[in-house]
Amino acid sequence: MTTKINLNSDMGESYGAWSMGDDDTLLTVITSANIACGFHGGDAVVMNHTVRKAKAEGVSIGAHPSFNDLWGFGRREIHMSAAEIENIMAYQIGALQGIAAAAGAVVTHVKPHGALNNMACRDKSMSDALARAVKAVDRNLIMLAPTGSLLLQASEEIALPTASEVFADRTYDDDGNLTRRGDPKAMVHDPEQAVANVLHMIRHQELVSTSGKVIPAAVHSVCVHGDGPTAVAVARAVRAGIEAESIAVVPLPEVLSA
Amino acid sequence: MTTKINLNSDMGESYGAWSMGDDDTLLTVITSANIACGFHGGDAVVMNHTVRKAKAEGVSIGAHPSFNDLWGFGRREIHMSAAEIENIMAYQIGALQGIAAAAGAVVTHVKPHGALNNMACRDKSMSDALARAVKAVDRNLIMLAPTGSLLLQASEEIALPTASEVFADRTYDDDGNLTRRGDPKAMVHDPEQAVANVLHMIRHQELVSTSGKVIPAAVHSVCVHGDGPTAVAVARAVRAGIEAESIAVVPLPEVLSA
Amino acid sequence: MTTKINLNSDMGESYGAWSMGDDDTLLTVITSANIACGFHGGDAVVMNHTVRKAKAEGVSIGAHPSFNDLWGFGRREIHMSAAEIENIMAYQIGALQGIAAAAGAVVTHVKPHGALNNMACRDKSMSDALARAVKAVDRNLIMLAPTGSLLLQASEEIALPTASEVFADRTYDDDGNLTRRGDPKAMVHDPEQAVANVLHMIRHQELVSTSGKVIPAAVHSVCVHGDGPTAVAVARAVRAGIEAESIAVVPLPEVLSA
Amino acid sequence: MTTKINLNSDMGESYGAWSMGDDDTLLTVITSANIACGFHGGDAVVMNHTVRKAKAEGVSIGAHPSFNDLWGFGRREIHMSAAEIENIMAYQIGALQGIAAAAGAVVTHVKPHGALNNMACRDKSMSDALARAVKAVDRNLIMLAPTGSLLLQASEEIALPTASEVFADRTYDDDGNLTRRGDPKAMVHDPEQAVANVLHMIRHQELVSTSGKVIPAAVHSVCVHGDGPTAVAVARAVRAGIEAESIAVVPLPEVLSA
Repeated sequence: MTTKINLNSDMGESYGAWSMGDDDTLLTVITSANIACGFHGGDAVVMNHTVRKAKAEGVSIGAHPSFNDLWGFGRREIHMSAAEIENIMAYQIGALQGIAAAAGAVVTHVKPHGALNNMACRDKSMSDALARAVKAVDRNLIMLAPTGSLLLQASEEIALPTASEVFADRTYDDDGNLTRRGDPKAMVHDPEQAVANVLHMIRHQELVSTSGKVIPAAVHSVCVHGDGPTAVAVARAVRAGIEAESIAVVPLPEVLSA
Repeated sequence: MTTKINLNSDMGESYGAWSMGDDDTLLTVITSANIACGFHGGDAVVMNHTVRKAKAEGVSIGAHPSFNDLWGFGRREIHMSAAEIENIMAYQIGALQGIAAAAGAVVTHVKPHGALNNMACRDKSMSDALARAVKAVDRNLIMLAPTGSLLLQASEEIALPTASEVFADRTYDDDGNLTRRGDPKAMVHDPEQAVANVLHMIRHQELVSTSGKVIPAAVHSVCVHGDGPTAVAVARAVRAGIEAESIAVVPLPEVLSA
Repeated sequence: MTTKINLNSDMGESYGAWSMGDDDTLLTVITSANIACGFHGGDAVVMNHTVRKAKAEGVSIGAHPSFNDLWGFGRREIHMSAAEIENIMAYQIGALQGIAAAAGAVVTHVKPHGALNNMACRDKSMSDALARAVKAVDRNLIMLAPTGSLLLQASEEIALPTASEVFADRTYDDDGNLTRRGDPKAMVHDPEQAVANVLHMIRHQELVSTSGKVIPAAVHSVCVHGDGPTAVAVARAVRAGIEAESIAVVPLPEVLSA
Repeated sequence: MTTKINLNSDMGESYGAWSMGDDDTLLTVITSANIACGFHGGDAVVMNHTVRKAKAEGVSIGAHPSFNDLWGFGRREIHMSAAEIENIMAYQIGALQGIAAAAGAVVTHVKPHGALNNMACRDKSMSDALARAVKAVDRNLIMLAPTGSLLLQASEEIALPTASEVFADRTYDDDGNLTRRGDPKAMVHDPEQAVANVLHMIRHQELVSTSGKVIPAAVHSVCVHGDGPTAVAVARAVRAGIEAESIAVVPLPEVLSA
C-alpha cells in the first residue's frame, strides 16, 4: 500500500529578460523541482532564485540538464558522443551544486531534459552515459526517469538510486510510452481526469494505455507542469486528490527512504 | 626564508574546434592550474581533459571564472550587479567541481579571469562580491589574487584563505600594479631576466617597479603563461631558477600549509 | 503645421521558446517596427515572422541592432572598439536585410537597442561609429534616434537620412534626456496623459521637462512599447489621439518625404 | 575542352580570441572564399577582415552558412524544420552581405557548411530548403555544391545558378560520394597525387573512385583546405598544376560565364 508519493516539475526555465512558467506558485504545490542548468534555459540568476525559493518551500532540488541549445530550448536532437554527453552532464550538475551550496541547499536528484531525455529513453548507450555521468559526480544522486524506461534500467544496472515517474497530464500507449504529442489523446487537460488517472497509477502501480492495456509500473513520483492555462490547476487538483487518499506528498529522497 | 613556492598558469581556454595554448606541456612545468569554466573558453570536454591531465601531473586545480563572453574571451568589461556576479561565480566554480568530482579530483582554489579580475582589482565592492561568492560555495577554497590587490584584501576581510601571486613575464609600476600592456616595458620576454625578477620577489617578498621603487609584497605563487613564442621557455626557466635555489615548487595548498 | 507622424516600436524580441511582447497586436497600431536582429533577442524564425507580419500590415521595417548579449538582453554596457561596433552593426543590419529579402520586404531604417543606444547617446565617437556603419551598409537607411541626441547629430554630420523620435510613455529632464527609470516620474502609465504629451510635442515640436522647461525638438516619430499591462492601451490611445487631430500616422520613409 | 576552373576554400572560421587556418596565405592561392557567417565560426570582425582581404586579392566571396552551433563547429547533426533552416540561411547570407556591402564587396555564391551540407546531401527535402532559401534572398547567387549531389539537383530544379565542386585532398567511393573520413584512403596528403587527381577530374569531367570506377561529373570548382600541415602546399601545387595546363584559375562567376 503506497503511503507516500512525490510531485515533481521542471522549473527555472526562464532566461535573462525572458520569463517562462509560474514557478513561484508551482513551488507551493510540488515537492521536487527539476531545475534547468543554463544549457536550455535557466541562467545563474534564475537558478539561484529557484533554488532559494525551493529551499524555502521544503521542495527537494534536482538538476535538469540538457543539450547546450538555448535557441532550441534543448528540444532539438543533437548528435554527440557518449564522452561529450558525460562531460556536459557533470558540468551542469556541478553548476547547480555550486549555486545550491552558495544558498545552503543540496542537489538530491537529476532528471535529464527534452531531447537529451527522449534520445536516452530509446538508446541504451546514451542512457548508460547519462547514468555513468550522474554516478561519477555523486553516487548518492537519485536518477528520476520515466517508469519502465531504458534510462531507469541503465541507472539500476550501475546501482544508482532511482525513482520512477509518471505524468499527470499525459496519456500512455500500449508500449508504456507517452502518447506522441501530435495525437489528439496525448494530453489530459481536465483536472478531474488527471486526478483519477494519477490515483489509479499510484494505487495499482500500473499504467492504463489509451486502448485500455494494463502495464505494471513502479510509481515514485508524478510529474506536473507549470505552463499552459490549466497546468497549475491540474497540479493543485492532483495534489489534493492524492492527499485526500491519505497518501503523503513528500520530497523525492523521502519517497525512497524506508 | 621562503622554502616553497607555487607556479600557476591559466589553462583550458580552448573551445570546441578551437585550440589555445600548449596546456599539456605547461602542465608538466607548473604546480597549479587555473582552469577556464566555459564562460570565456573551456567547454566541458576541454575542462575534463585539463582536470584529468592536471591530476595526473600532480598539479592542483583552480577555477578560472569569467564574465559570460565567449566572443570577447572575457576581456571585455561588462557591467553587472554584485548579485549577478556572485551567481555566475557560484555557477562556474560548481561546474568545475562537477567535472573534477567525475574525474576523482578536487578544486582547491579560484582565480578570476580577465576583465572580471581587472575590474575587481580596482573596485572594492566587486572584490567583495567575488570573495563572498567563493566563500559561499566552499569556505576552504583559496582565493589566488595579485599581491597587494583589493581582491586579496576583500578575501582576507572575510577570512577566506588567500594566496598572493606575482607575474614572471610582467613588470610593475610604482603603485605595485602591473605596467599597462601598451607600455614597451610591460612584458619580460627574456627568460634570464624573468628568473632574476622572480627570485628577487620570492627572496625579499617585495616588488621592484620599473622606476626602481621597492614595494613590500607577499609572494605565494608566480604566474606564468602558456601562449606566445617564449612563454613555455620562460616558465621552464623560472621553475629551474627557483629549484636551483632549493626552493620547492609545490601545489597551492602546500604553500599555505605550515 | 505637422500633417504626418510616425509611430515606432521595438519588436521581435522573443527568442526560441521564450515569448516577449504582444507584437502581432502592436503591429496593427504602429507604422514602423524596430526588429531585433538576434544579438539581444529575435532569432531568425522570430525575425522572419515579424518581418512578414509587418509587411502585411504596411508597417515599415527597421533593424534594431544590439551588443551580442542574449543573457543581458543588450542592456548591459560592454566595452568594444569602434571597429568592432561597426562590424556588429553591419552584420545585424545585413541579417535582417537577408530575412526581409526572402520575404519580399525592405529594411528602411535602423534604431540601435538598449545599452548600445544609451552609450552612443552620451559618447560622440560611438555615435560616429554607429552612423558610419549604417551608411556603409546602405546610405539610404534612415537613422531613427532620440530627438536632440548625439546619435542624431553624428548621423546628420555624414548626411545619413535621420528621423527624430520622442517617447509616449516616458518623461524628460531639463537636458532633454529621458528621466532616469529609477525616478518615480520617469514613466507615463496614463493613456490620456501620454496622448496629451505626445500631441504637445508634435504640434509644438518641443519637449516639456518634468520641471516645466521647454526644449525645442524635432519630432518625426513617437516610440510606443508593447510590454507592460498598459502598453498596448497607451499605443492605441496615442494613435487615436493623433488621428483625431487630422495628422496622418505613416511609415517612417513617408514622414521624411516632402 | 575546359579552359577555366575555380579554386575554393572555407575561410574565416576563427572566432574571437581563437584563430583557425592560415587564411591570409590561402587567399593568395584560391579564387573563391566560402566565408563562415558566425554560426559555427567567424564573428563579425573576422568576417570583415576576410571579406576585405578576399576583395583585395580578387577572390570572389561566398557565404558558408551553418547550423547555429559554435561549440560543435557546425559539425553536429541538429534536427530542424525546413522553415527553420530557410530562416537561418537567409539570416547568415544577409549578415555576410551586410559586412560585404560595408566593405564595397559583393557576395556571389553560397556553400553550406559541415553537418548542414552533409545532411542536405542525403536528404532531398533539406536540399530543397537550402536551395529555396538562397533563391529567396537573391536569385543570382550561385549554389556551390558537391558534383552529383542532391543539393546541386535541388538547386537546378528551381533554376538557381549552380557550380559543381570536387575535392583536391579527398577520394571518392563508387557512388561518387567522398570516402568516409575514417577510411585510411579518405585523404590525399601527397601534393603530386592531388594534382594528378584534380587534372584528371577537370580534363575528363569525371571522378575515378578508389576502386577504379569512373563516374561522369561536372567540375566547375576544386575545393582546397587551409588547415593541416600539408594543406597550403597541396593548394599551391593544385593551382600550379592547373595553370601549367593553360587552364585559367578564376573566380566562381567567371567559370559560369560563357
